[in-house]
Amino acid sequence: MAIKLIGFPQPPNTLRVVLTLNELGLPFELEPVTDIQTIKTEDFIANKHPFGKVPVLIDGDFVIHESRAICRYLISKYQKDAKVVLIPDDPNKAAIVEQYLSYETAYYDPPLTKIVYQELVIKNFLGKPIDEAVVKQALEEIEKVLDIYEKILEGKDYLTGEYSFADLLHAGCAQYIYADTAHSYIFEKRPNVKRWIANLRNRDAFKKTYA
Amino acid sequence: MAIKLIGFPQPPNTLRVVLTLNELGLPFELEPVTDIQTIKTEDFIANKHPFGKVPVLIDGDFVIHESRAICRYLISKYQKDAKVVLIPDDPNKAAIVEQYLSYETAYYDPPLTKIVYQELVIKNFLGKPIDEAVVKQALEEIEKVLDIYEKILEGKDYLTGEYSFADLLHAGCAQYIYADTAHSYIFEKRPNVKRWIANLRNRDAFKKTYA
Repeated sequence: MAIKLIGFPQPPNTLRVVLTLNELGLPFELEPVTDIQTIKTEDFIANKHPFGKVPVLIDGDFVIHESRAICRYLISKYQKDAKVVLIPDDPNKAAIVEQYLSYETAYYDPPLTKIVYQELVIKNFLGKPIDEAVVKQALEEIEKVLDIYEKILEGKDYLTGEYSFADLLHAGCAQYIYADTAHSYIFEKRPNVKRWIANLRNRDAFKKTYA
Repeated sequence: MAIKLIGFPQPPNTLRVVLTLNELGLPFELEPVTDIQTIKTEDFIANKHPFGKVPVLIDGDFVIHESRAICRYLISKYQKDAKVVLIPDDPNKAAIVEQYLSYETAYYDPPLTKIVYQELVIKNFLGKPIDEAVVKQALEEIEKVLDIYEKILEGKDYLTGEYSFADLLHAGCAQYIYADTAHSYIFEKRPNVKRWIANLRNRDAFKKTYA
């Protein structure tokens, strides 16, 4: 039975899982949620996600939700048969991947999410004026973070040297900045960061996911 | 050589690592940071943490930072010799732990952190008036989250049934609510949540950490 993924076809949470599935070379069937009410029903809350959220992954009899938990499940279950190593078995190598995963959550994602929320959701979807002060502050914040990334990425193709789950999670937000805002210069003006982002966006699995 | 942990002796990030070390029964030496300037030096930034943060763990020649990455490192390296299983080897069982870890980050921690920030940092440390509206909204948010936890914890001692890394990460914020705010009723009024929090706070490793 094929892996089934229930999710909105757009937002980063579902695409993060799709990118992981594509990197691991796993076939799957996407069941798109077109009406938010379908994930707020008693049945969905009882059997899929108690908070009424997506994505939800169904693998045979096993139901799992929360995007990062789903990705980790797919990695621990299917990485051994894949061509890519997203989290190494060696505890020290894995720890460095976890360190960069924590950078993503703590330093990289929050300011970028604020920018994307203003420029994609508020401006493009809701057609309302954006809060320029929020965007300005978020840009100042991410610029400082990317200055540190620029040093980390010196002489490297990816954060740990090899492609990993840490790089994978950084890719989604970067794509929104390129596709939906005028701020891609934050990556472009730093040579090492620019090369890294290009490496991420040139991967086959990335192109397949964001096609 | 003993494991060395550099950190502030108080805040949740360092105590989360101390609790993991204690649960795994690992001896360690805590090097407390008493002056924030020591973690902003060129040397610290070059050799310990590029963002100038703690905790940092040193295990022989291996230096690792970011609290959740450190915890995962300790688990993957030392769990095999410990009396407790914080993340199971089985991918399906591990996935359920990861699911609850995601709940902690996405739903449980944010409102509780807002309350603790207002009532501990702003009121007690800075001696300033708290923003009652922020506390009120955060309380409403966490009450809804704990209603869902109440159902999940029906007939269970811990989130997955057995104690895991997911329970461990929930313990820190709960302790602040008990120790430093008047809001412990949010746990106490829900029988299953109350029992779960009592189980967490009654563990030997918890008592040792928060003594």
